[in-house]
Amino acid sequence: MAGLNDSTTTVSELKSRVLAFVRERDWEQFHSPKNLSMALAAESGELMEHFLWATPEQSHAIAREGVKREKIADELADVVIYAIEFANITGLDLAAAIEAKMAANARKYPVEKARGRADKYTEL
Amino acid sequence: MAGLNDSTTTVSELKSRVLAFVRERDWEQFHSPKNLSMALAAESGELMEHFLWATPEQSHAIAREGVKREKIADELADVVIYAIEFANITGLDLAAAIEAKMAANARKYPVEKARGRADKYTEL
Amino acid sequence: MAGLNDSTTTVSELKSRVLAFVRERDWEQFHSPKNLSMALAAESGELMEHFLWATPEQSHAIAREGVKREKIADELADVVIYAIEFANITGLDLAAAIEAKMAANARKYPVEKARGRADKYTEL
Amino acid sequence: MAGLNDSTTTVSELKSRVLAFVRERDWEQFHSPKNLSMALAAESGELMEHFLWATPEQSHAIAREGVKREKIADELADVVIYAIEFANITGLDLAAAIEAKMAANARKYPVEKARGRADKYTEL
Repeated sequence: MAGLNDSTTTVSELKSRVLAFVRERDWEQFHSPKNLSMALAAESGELMEHFLWATPEQSHAIAREGVKREKIADELADVVIYAIEFANITGLDLAAAIEAKMAANARKYPVEKARGRADKYTEL
Repeated sequence: MAGLNDSTTTVSELKSRVLAFVRERDWEQFHSPKNLSMALAAESGELMEHFLWATPEQSHAIAREGVKREKIADELADVVIYAIEFANITGLDLAAAIEAKMAANARKYPVEKARGRADKYTEL
Repeated sequence: MAGLNDSTTTVSELKSRVLAFVRERDWEQFHSPKNLSMALAAESGELMEHFLWATPEQSHAIAREGVKREKIADELADVVIYAIEFANITGLDLAAAIEAKMAANARKYPVEKARGRADKYTEL
Repeated sequence: MAGLNDSTTTVSELKSRVLAFVRERDWEQFHSPKNLSMALAAESGELMEHFLWATPEQSHAIAREGVKREKIADELADVVIYAIEFANITGLDLAAAIEAKMAANARKYPVEKARGRADKYTEL
């Protein structure tokens, strides 16, 4: 098996794989939006744990270290798997939602005002 | 513009769009793995807020209501945008990471043992 | 040692104990508000993990089971320890902050409007 | 009213105040351990949002700025209110749980090994 990669894999393919995994195990009964949002938040907490006491600069190095990199990739995958399953269960189109959100963000954070600044749009 | 949708959009296309947005604003300086993991967790907290006091059953209905559905789609998009940007900054391949994690999950949760059960693999 | 209990322990006593623990280990250098807020969120994610797939009703039983109850008490303690340390580092008075927040909540959620309803105050 | 402060307020007094607030509104029906753990995690996400793009050093200054300091105190209060209510609903003694957890932490992180180091106990 050649394996999946970002260049050739559509969001729908990921959705189908996650859905098949869930259905084989009869787990849709547990996958309410409420429960999936909790799982997503819990997994993002686990991703964050790798970086608690590091400076932002150090966190770049942590994400490059062999063993930690693999664990970090695993936690990130968990987060995205639950996001995909949330989209499956609710019938949301992720690419469309991302496109719409980025368009809204572009209005909130116009390039000329937001460049190089980390301020919230209400403070630009 | 026809707009993106999950059927035809690859992960790489989403990555490129997010990266372009970030670079235009010179925001990469703020996007350490540490900071992005925080943003991801904070956004997943916002997604969760829609379902705090609802039962799991009620949460399905909440995710279908017009106005709330849009807000929920926005929060989900925020989560995935930060996950994508985390992959951009760290050079991780999301589809490969998801495939690897699902293979590991399939070993931890074999269909015959896990079917219909929400227990952790250590308790199966 | 008789041990601490909620009836006789002031918030300041808890603050002092946490501060002493941290100072003995020379850990204040890591305890910025940013890092402590991350630790707090990560620990609250761990608390939540005990209840991901349970119904709200089942979660009451989980919190009563012997071994799980101990783990849950540990996670809750972690959350509160980080909240206390956050107050230590920032010089905030927790009891005063809680009193002020509850007064604000009482205005947002007057008894006659909020009784028996889980709606956000903007929807009452 | 003189107002509460950490020096003279016991944990039990805070518990009683939160419980009274909740009961007056007949909200115990919504306060399962599951739901309260979600609320706690969501509020800790809100606390974290104040520090997303700041460096750890900058976060000290943010927590001192007038208006932000008040908002941060409010978010911290929300976190602790939900932790207290979690203890109310589950019958846990917070001071005892904190004391027990700190004793366990002292064993995991002996002063001589842990001093000045942010490593996890498994890596000391």
